[in-house]
Amino acid sequence: MRSVAEVREYLSRARRAGRTIGLVPTMGALHAGNISLMEKARGQCDVLAVTIFVNPLQFGPNEDYQRYPRNLERDLEACERVGVDVVFAPAFEALYVSEQKIFIEITQLADHLCGPFRPGHFRGVATVVAKLFNVIQPDTAYFGEKDYQQLCIIRKMVEDLNLPIEIVPVATYREPDGLALSSRNVYLEPEGREAAPTLFRALSSARKMIEDGEKDVAVIKESSAWILDAESHIRPEYFEIVDPVNLQPVTEIAGEVRIAGAVWIGKTRLIDNVSAVPRQGG
Amino acid sequence: MRSVAEVREYLSRARRAGRTIGLVPTMGALHAGNISLMEKARGQCDVLAVTIFVNPLQFGPNEDYQRYPRNLERDLEACERVGVDVVFAPAFEALYVSEQKIFIEITQLADHLCGPFRPGHFRGVATVVAKLFNVIQPDTAYFGEKDYQQLCIIRKMVEDLNLPIEIVPVATYREPDGLALSSRNVYLEPEGREAAPTLFRALSSARKMIEDGEKDVAVIKESSAWILDAESHIRPEYFEIVDPVNLQPVTEIAGEVRIAGAVWIGKTRLIDNVSAVPRQGG
Repeated sequence: MRSVAEVREYLSRARRAGRTIGLVPTMGALHAGNISLMEKARGQCDVLAVTIFVNPLQFGPNEDYQRYPRNLERDLEACERVGVDVVFAPAFEALYVSEQKIFIEITQLADHLCGPFRPGHFRGVATVVAKLFNVIQPDTAYFGEKDYQQLCIIRKMVEDLNLPIEIVPVATYREPDGLALSSRNVYLEPEGREAAPTLFRALSSARKMIEDGEKDVAVIKESSAWILDAESHIRPEYFEIVDPVNLQPVTEIAGEVRIAGAVWIGKTRLIDNVSAVPRQGG
Repeated sequence: MRSVAEVREYLSRARRAGRTIGLVPTMGALHAGNISLMEKARGQCDVLAVTIFVNPLQFGPNEDYQRYPRNLERDLEACERVGVDVVFAPAFEALYVSEQKIFIEITQLADHLCGPFRPGHFRGVATVVAKLFNVIQPDTAYFGEKDYQQLCIIRKMVEDLNLPIEIVPVATYREPDGLALSSRNVYLEPEGREAAPTLFRALSSARKMIEDGEKDVAVIKESSAWILDAESHIRPEYFEIVDPVNLQPVTEIAGEVRIAGAVWIGKTRLIDNVSAVPRQGG
């Protein structure tokens, strides 16, 4: 469906019939990671809605909005295979009817990790997700842990704006060699693809050190930096260890943390993250 | 009702029964102006919800949050007389459960009129209204034209965030001498109360000039300034003629405009506004 009115009409009938609605918002170019979200959602709600919209608001002026992969026909086939009930794929003008003047403002949660490197990105994400939430009015919405900062921001938006929606996180889907699935992986040249799992190896190594009792974040980050620097195709952007809720960097491990990194491989930017919990008494 | 869960439970039952929900958000200390909104709403929806909440987020550090009039008992009696179905009067902690980190950001529409004099005010208003909208999930919500900039911002928020809510504007309720009703009128000393209708007289005079064909905003503003300056108890804050939708000042009258002003009378700040349309061929 392409129009807000059409999708609202369809879903309000379902809602009146007492059916629960699940939402998986996507930017299309669906891969096994997106599909794992859709399959999880499919099992938990009566009506499954998927949105496909490449949102210009969340791309910076020098980012890859224009070349971001698009393949609506293949996406619709994938949705059909999973048993999606309604695909909402609006044109830009259907969602941004007049000049947007009201935005979702994020304090604190966008100060670190991807935030400083992508100014305005999370403002754009949160704004379009708020719009899609209000069009679809789902009972539950599914977000991948691969975009952990996004997940935390959306979760806080739901809490702070009292949205009547449950946010369900879905574990990151990985290739056998550890690379997190992303629509941007298609950009990688063969040697870049070979280097790409190094990010996950660096994250896993940091997690192992934390589980084994290392408390000093500087020591852990230096060790991970060695792993990344050893791979000549990789240019690290950030590698941070943060509180899992407020996303502020920690200097000493005292409980559960999130380890997150971003790297450039050629012109492609990849992100990934893992959770780490120090062993009791470690 | 005091808790979000309680009011949601009540309203979701009404919604499932196919009943329409109307919302009048207030800060309490209800006067005939608020009550005219409630009466209009009463005639247009099945279930009428009124919220009473003095929102600290929309008050500046030197504003009147502490002394803002509160009288819940009298408010509840007024609601009962109108036939309000549910009054939601949460404590601060019920609405702001944890530290608020997500806000509604307003571009352009807060740049003039009250915006520059009350930094953060409309961000606070829009944020709490978004929260209340998501708790109540009304079909229609009623806002007085007395707070015209607020009305425009809420209307744009509904449009830009795709909220499934119809905003109904309600004409300003005035005393026989023209003073717009406001909870803050109770602050006025007798001589201040006597001076107060001067703001409406200045607005009406500007409207008359526009209707009579005056096009030059500088001329109109100067004439109104004379009226305000002649009243020694009044200290004007702003007097602007703006586009009625984007709220940007105009220099020449070419169509409908909104004339809005704010004045101080002692320690009390009053605002008011009127619409003006130039006569065809005037």
